Amino acid sequence: MPEFELIRRYFKEKTSTNAMLRVGIGDDAAVLKTQANTDLVVAVDTLVAGVHFPLNTSAFDIGYKSLAVNLSDLAAMGAVPRWMTLALTLPQADETWLNDFSRGLFSLAEEFNVALVGGDTTQGPLTISIQVGGTVEQDRALLRSGARTGDAILVTGTLGDAARGLQLNQNMETDIPPGYLERLNRPIPRVAAGQRLLGLASSCIDISDGLYADLLHITEASGVGAIIEMEQLPLSSLLQADAIALPQKYRLALGGGDDYELCFTVSEANLALTQSALTDIGMPCSVIGEITENHGVTLHSTEAGEIMVDTLGYQHFS
Amino acid sequence: MPEFELIRRYFKEKTSTNAMLRVGIGDDAAVLKTQANTDLVVAVDTLVAGVHFPLNTSAFDIGYKSLAVNLSDLAAMGAVPRWMTLALTLPQADETWLNDFSRGLFSLAEEFNVALVGGDTTQGPLTISIQVGGTVEQDRALLRSGARTGDAILVTGTLGDAARGLQLNQNMETDIPPGYLERLNRPIPRVAAGQRLLGLASSCIDISDGLYADLLHITEASGVGAIIEMEQLPLSSLLQADAIALPQKYRLALGGGDDYELCFTVSEANLALTQSALTDIGMPCSVIGEITENHGVTLHSTEAGEIMVDTLGYQHFS
Repeated sequence: MPEFELIRRYFKEKTSTNAMLRVGIGDDAAVLKTQANTDLVVAVDTLVAGVHFPLNTSAFDIGYKSLAVNLSDLAAMGAVPRWMTLALTLPQADETWLNDFSRGLFSLAEEFNVALVGGDTTQGPLTISIQVGGTVEQDRALLRSGARTGDAILVTGTLGDAARGLQLNQNMETDIPPGYLERLNRPIPRVAAGQRLLGLASSCIDISDGLYADLLHITEASGVGAIIEMEQLPLSSLLQADAIALPQKYRLALGGGDDYELCFTVSEANLALTQSALTDIGMPCSVIGEITENHGVTLHSTEAGEIMVDTLGYQHFS
Repeated sequence: MPEFELIRRYFKEKTSTNAMLRVGIGDDAAVLKTQANTDLVVAVDTLVAGVHFPLNTSAFDIGYKSLAVNLSDLAAMGAVPRWMTLALTLPQADETWLNDFSRGLFSLAEEFNVALVGGDTTQGPLTISIQVGGTVEQDRALLRSGARTGDAILVTGTLGDAARGLQLNQNMETDIPPGYLERLNRPIPRVAAGQRLLGLASSCIDISDGLYADLLHITEASGVGAIIEMEQLPLSSLLQADAIALPQKYRLALGGGDDYELCFTVSEANLALTQSALTDIGMPCSVIGEITENHGVTLHSTEAGEIMVDTLGYQHFS
């Protein structure tokens, strides 16, 4: 199948349009209208087979997740997703694979009204690089740098399930609870939550490398520190009921990564308002600690006292 | 070297900023100001080692060319380049390689005042995916779809040198003329020319797959045809003096690709004005044919009459 036919069949015909789009797939570049008093927010994330997802991941899930991790970045800025470009490198043009991949991609794209406006298809080892563009009211994007001493630290949803799913997959378990795989393969980007946090949260990040490492980004960017109360870490009922020991659960929640929840900070004055804003949209959130003057991220357990950890986040090339 | 240190040392510290940038590298996403009455133009191109450049290409040239091919897409829209994101997949964090790659990338980025605003670094087979963003006056971008019967077809610069360089490289020649390698490895995106064509050209595309295939995109998007006069194809003095036969030179100019010149169409009324606008900026251009009512691209030689060709463009998965 020629490249142009592949693009037409699996991508151009499948995408929806949106109000910002002047020229989409099929020219040298896409042309998008800009809006008065808004900023453009752009993020890019690459997924490499065997690195960012297990080799046995379904094409549908790869398509879904490639977009989800990018939308999660926009969510962390409080932006409204608008469009994406796709750079797809494939070993061969397998039609079944492409069909499933594009179904996964567009199932999420449609949910968030994201138009595919351009891209590039090349032959090589399976790599998916998606760039998303969104908009946010001028100068209002949620940054990592605004956390202040005394702010409460919150996270949406629950932590550790995706990492537990990955762990079981890597252990070649055959009977992995679907709840874990759902969190690993189909993370739900917290887009609505991010938008609700505009003007309320003092800082925000999405949890991709693991809570500990990602919270460190907030503290470093803000010039502050943080203390996490281990017993406050939100674990799903599935992980709570899991046979593994509690410290291992905490380890998954702190350093496992792939959660794609939002971690954010809120001043005392805004806390109640923030909690009710998220409750309004049915998004559970938990206070898990507090921003401190002392730098670094400290872990505290009511039972065990202060716990020292090495950096838990996932790093490439480390 | 940890990922964040790599990003800081070779990318964050090397990039310039620009007036559109609110938040660059180091948050979940980049935040860019938008301008009134302008459209946003975005393009993405991926380069895979061994597919888009020979494995013996220097890191400097890979960095340079990865951006050049993207700027060429913006040039073909008449856009002003503004920013880029970089998704870099590397087998390992080789510091010498990274240093050279980033020097090549930023040598071109600085020339066109393009800020690196974000990106993603992952481990895997060498793949570089760059996305560029530019701006153009509202609703004025040069498209592929505006060519009309009777329009002259022009190209900037000369054609075939890059393809000849690649051919000699693939033949393991050791004494390749530097002029060919310069065109292969360091194409100059015709950004200023593209901007000069706004309001003058009826359609425009950059020549990456080869003149024949890329002109076909214009004719298909415009619902017209084209005739190319073989003797008008602009060949460099180097290629003219090359010992290979003339038909092989035409073949390189028509189907070799990697030229990164602009191919554009101009109405008779705008022709003289267009030629002088390009002369003003020192950009040579040649009339190579005419848009016709009959569909398809026909090759015509004064000596040989009409020549039939198969599609000459490079296609992945074909």
